[in-house]
Amino acid sequence: MAKERKYWNEELETMSLDDLRKLQEKRLQETVSRAYEKTKFYRQKFDDAGIKPSGINTLDDLQKLPLIHSSEDFRKAPIPDRLAVPFEEVKYLESSSGTTGVPMAILWSGKDWKNLMDAEARARWTLGTRPSDVVHVLTGFPCCQGGYQHLGAMVMALSAGRGVLDNQIKLGQMVGVSVLEYLPSLVLKYFERAIEMGYDIKNGSIRLISALGEGWAEAYKRRVEDEYNVTLRTLYGSVDAGLIGAQCESGEGLHTFLDLVITEIIDPETGEVLTPGQEGELVITLLWPDATPIIRYRTGDVTKILPYEPCPCGRTHPRISMVRGRAVQITKVKGKNILPIDVEEIVADIPELESDYQILVDKPGELEVLKVKMEYKPDVKDRKALKKRVEDAFKKNLSVESDVELVPMGTLGREKFKATRVIRTYDEN
Amino acid sequence: MAKERKYWNEELETMSLDDLRKLQEKRLQETVSRAYEKTKFYRQKFDDAGIKPSGINTLDDLQKLPLIHSSEDFRKAPIPDRLAVPFEEVKYLESSSGTTGVPMAILWSGKDWKNLMDAEARARWTLGTRPSDVVHVLTGFPCCQGGYQHLGAMVMALSAGRGVLDNQIKLGQMVGVSVLEYLPSLVLKYFERAIEMGYDIKNGSIRLISALGEGWAEAYKRRVEDEYNVTLRTLYGSVDAGLIGAQCESGEGLHTFLDLVITEIIDPETGEVLTPGQEGELVITLLWPDATPIIRYRTGDVTKILPYEPCPCGRTHPRISMVRGRAVQITKVKGKNILPIDVEEIVADIPELESDYQILVDKPGELEVLKVKMEYKPDVKDRKALKKRVEDAFKKNLSVESDVELVPMGTLGREKFKATRVIRTYDEN
Repeated sequence: MAKERKYWNEELETMSLDDLRKLQEKRLQETVSRAYEKTKFYRQKFDDAGIKPSGINTLDDLQKLPLIHSSEDFRKAPIPDRLAVPFEEVKYLESSSGTTGVPMAILWSGKDWKNLMDAEARARWTLGTRPSDVVHVLTGFPCCQGGYQHLGAMVMALSAGRGVLDNQIKLGQMVGVSVLEYLPSLVLKYFERAIEMGYDIKNGSIRLISALGEGWAEAYKRRVEDEYNVTLRTLYGSVDAGLIGAQCESGEGLHTFLDLVITEIIDPETGEVLTPGQEGELVITLLWPDATPIIRYRTGDVTKILPYEPCPCGRTHPRISMVRGRAVQITKVKGKNILPIDVEEIVADIPELESDYQILVDKPGELEVLKVKMEYKPDVKDRKALKKRVEDAFKKNLSVESDVELVPMGTLGREKFKATRVIRTYDEN
Repeated sequence: MAKERKYWNEELETMSLDDLRKLQEKRLQETVSRAYEKTKFYRQKFDDAGIKPSGINTLDDLQKLPLIHSSEDFRKAPIPDRLAVPFEEVKYLESSSGTTGVPMAILWSGKDWKNLMDAEARARWTLGTRPSDVVHVLTGFPCCQGGYQHLGAMVMALSAGRGVLDNQIKLGQMVGVSVLEYLPSLVLKYFERAIEMGYDIKNGSIRLISALGEGWAEAYKRRVEDEYNVTLRTLYGSVDAGLIGAQCESGEGLHTFLDLVITEIIDPETGEVLTPGQEGELVITLLWPDATPIIRYRTGDVTKILPYEPCPCGRTHPRISMVRGRAVQITKVKGKNILPIDVEEIVADIPELESDYQILVDKPGELEVLKVKMEYKPDVKDRKALKKRVEDAFKKNLSVESDVELVPMGTLGREKFKATRVIRTYDEN
């Protein structure tokens, strides 16, 4: 029975690394040939680079292929140019969020939808969800809800509670929700509101948070686990890439589903491929899509492939670290790459600070000192001492000099959904 | 092939009325027995009424059973009392909108979900959607999206465009959306905005609106059809009842899916069952649910069963008229039942009026005169003449005397999602 099994797909998830590599290389060849034969977009890219699909046989050959930029290449290409099936075979359309411009259409065939559902289910199984769970997907993605249904769990409709948090909490408590899928930064707000409404989260039915790949300070995660007695595990995927990986019950980082995707880490400035342990931008090549080939696609996300170690969970697939931010958010300070999450880790650890902050970048290139604005709580008396404490923490944890400006609570505009964390104060043109 | 067939399920949809009745009676007996055996809720209701399931054999026997009020009975019952399966078999949870109080949880088993998907697909097939269509569901219901996927159409994700109308329009035009599922009153706003954005709706890809059962003036529907060259057809269903019926390509009213539901029309005040052609509140008994039996459930919706006539589309199932409003919205004026939609039909036909209006009820019971507030357009010169024209229209179309108060545009609060159309100005307690 489904309930008893340990893995969603034991054969694939515990495959030897050698067999996994062979599978990847076989699928890579098929993917590259198909993309070249069926799409104008890739044929042109490969021709421009002087590469034929016959030259791509091993994982190492991948580096011969050009990198694809979502915003510069993919968005500009007309839909028919990037489609590898006739348009009538497209059965599902998603879009990127469009926060950086026109939303980009993502196209899947009926076969892609089935593969996607399987990967969605597998990711949730990896996190520890089982068919006996009651799941509430609060992120609003129908494919995620479908994945949980495919896994066999009890699912609360995306429309249940009609987007009103109080109603969602009430319904969840009414039916004993056990798994909550949400943006991690919104989990604490859900818990705080539930407690205001009179529910006991710590001793309640919620046992697991399935957090989508947004970077979030470890200090906050510990708060979810310690204060609320709820486990938080992380998924990584996106509407254009499907599921890339998930955190298992035992290990560090996220297992990447290497039968579905080839991962590379590059230096976002030079495009040079980095080695395991080195942090940079994740580049993916998807091995399953039918409708939309995705080859050497820059995700914009910063992570690293972890040096290989067997995982106690038994899954053989290598792991990446939690995604720590976006490549465009990197601030260079005396040779160090600083991301907003580095600042967040320190903020989360100093109780006199509010959670909002901004990194200020006043010139292009490398900075000598990290400049940060932070909000202090109303009851702070000695701001000078607090400033020194924060600056010492940066020195100790990140080995950079910093200049911290403390501003009153509410100054930095708390209510934004996606806070702007890096402010460039110079003219970029 | 699916594309060639005329019906979603020919056997069920073209069944003789005699066979249909036999099927209904067989399923009714099973439904009633199961509800009595498995749920505390129905056992108590039936016991209180002194009825045993063995006494319910024909459709006429149905009237022996008590009516169920969503708000008074169903909402108050604990979930376990209304469940006919063990809780672990519940696989999908929806909720009523909660606009009238606490959202009520609606529970479905895995088998129910499959039956629901089939009914969702059948309703859209009845409207005229085919697997070659590109569908955008703008109402936000995952079960509706699932129904179109089950039918085989190309579906835009509920999350595509992230709830931003401009993005949704852009994406829809990019991929050639052909069927739009939406609240009818929002369709015109979609079209108007699309035109502002530079799209040509009249000669564009959208060919069909699947409008959810909200009452909407025929005059507005004609505008969609004439001004925009788009067909508008109506579905009727709800999250607690699933799919009840749909408008076919040829006929008047909505075919009700009588293999899935038994329909009755009652006088909302006395509970007396009315005959075909008489307007009243629709009461439903569902013949498919596994998890949540629904027996003689008052929908609150006002409609009538149309006198039987064979339909040119070939479907044998009888039809109901478009849902005209909610039973609580009925205003009695000298023996006539007036609904907001009756006022809307008149408003929509007089170009000097804006679309907002309010019916004022200043005492309980029957009124002598219909009192209505309406907004006039800024360029109206002779308000006295306009008032008389509107009052004459009420006399002519509804045979009631009226007292119309004309107020400037914007007075009645245009931007509300669900406008309050009936205002009680007396103390109801």
